[in-house]
Amino acid sequence: MKPEIDYTLYLCTDRKVMTTESIEDCVELAIKGGVSVVQLREKECTSREFYELALAVKEITDAYEVPLIINDRVDIALAIGADGVHLGQMDVPVQAARNVLGPDKIIGATAHNIKEAEKAWKLGADYLGVGDVFGTTSKLDTSRIALDELHIICQSVPIPVVAIGGVSEGNIHKLQGSGVAGAAVISAVIGKENITAAAEELIKGFLGE
Amino acid sequence: MKPEIDYTLYLCTDRKVMTTESIEDCVELAIKGGVSVVQLREKECTSREFYELALAVKEITDAYEVPLIINDRVDIALAIGADGVHLGQMDVPVQAARNVLGPDKIIGATAHNIKEAEKAWKLGADYLGVGDVFGTTSKLDTSRIALDELHIICQSVPIPVVAIGGVSEGNIHKLQGSGVAGAAVISAVIGKENITAAAEELIKGFLGE
Repeated sequence: MKPEIDYTLYLCTDRKVMTTESIEDCVELAIKGGVSVVQLREKECTSREFYELALAVKEITDAYEVPLIINDRVDIALAIGADGVHLGQMDVPVQAARNVLGPDKIIGATAHNIKEAEKAWKLGADYLGVGDVFGTTSKLDTSRIALDELHIICQSVPIPVVAIGGVSEGNIHKLQGSGVAGAAVISAVIGKENITAAAEELIKGFLGE
Repeated sequence: MKPEIDYTLYLCTDRKVMTTESIEDCVELAIKGGVSVVQLREKECTSREFYELALAVKEITDAYEVPLIINDRVDIALAIGADGVHLGQMDVPVQAARNVLGPDKIIGATAHNIKEAEKAWKLGADYLGVGDVFGTTSKLDTSRIALDELHIICQSVPIPVVAIGGVSEGNIHKLQGSGVAGAAVISAVIGKENITAAAEELIKGFLGE
């Protein structure tokens, strides 16, 4: 059966911005602060390294019962028993991934506008990462999306939408009322000296506490 | 059921050495010359590009009833219905790939010595690519293996062994008597002006005709 996922604070890993030595430590500290789902993203290592890293991170996410999503690599998600995959526009198509993964794995897809969002949902995505909402510094090839378009997307597709791109402690409150199920973060959590506290503050900002 | 593969002339693709514009043309010309199995190897493109290229190449290999093996990407092999995967030492482990692929897909593994060969066979590899036999120019990180060690490996593992690394029209005859099931080639076929004729000559050299 497909797992129920709490998307409130969705951590994407990125070794380039981490303040800890190991991804495992980084993920554990973030989960202690309330990160509710973890996506492991590795674009610059061999398949073997990605596989071994994913196995190690899964030990942490399993211990805290937090779902683990693998970026791009459907095979590594299957090999380590992850909860699902996240697919960008440059990864394998959603329907091809679904054929390989079967019905019980989560497939997330990136969408930059309403057209891509509706397409990904119709092809079988379980959630959407929609952005760039606040101007990311992690990627160069993104285009901004206005908060009112984000709101329209949330009303148009019946699956959870996660806001991505430049989300920080200073802007996360702006997502209130947009209809998103959560916010994806990278450096706003794992680029901070106190990863656990950063995650806690972001959740407060998202929930308006 | 697992397909029976004729390993006599095993083509690995490499866009950097191709004399044709498209990989599809290149593969078709090579098959017309007698290439008996094709491995699609793409290390420098996105997953989406690899997937779409693999789909296109599979149309060619299917038309000629030649098996198609995908390098590294177990998910793309499954998504396009390839016959199997080839895994190097930097790819996912053989047993992890077997768990994902099931019993009916071919798994090939690279081995550089008898220890790696026996390990890969015991973990469930269906064939081995063993080299570097003649000094490849395609990879920088290889070490040579002597023909007598290749012979010992062929006697030690009960699965087909394909000689890899620098195989050319000038040296392929040296593999006679080694016990290999075939020879893997890249530039000796797809780097030639007449790809079809190059494949034909290599087969003659391998068979001692």
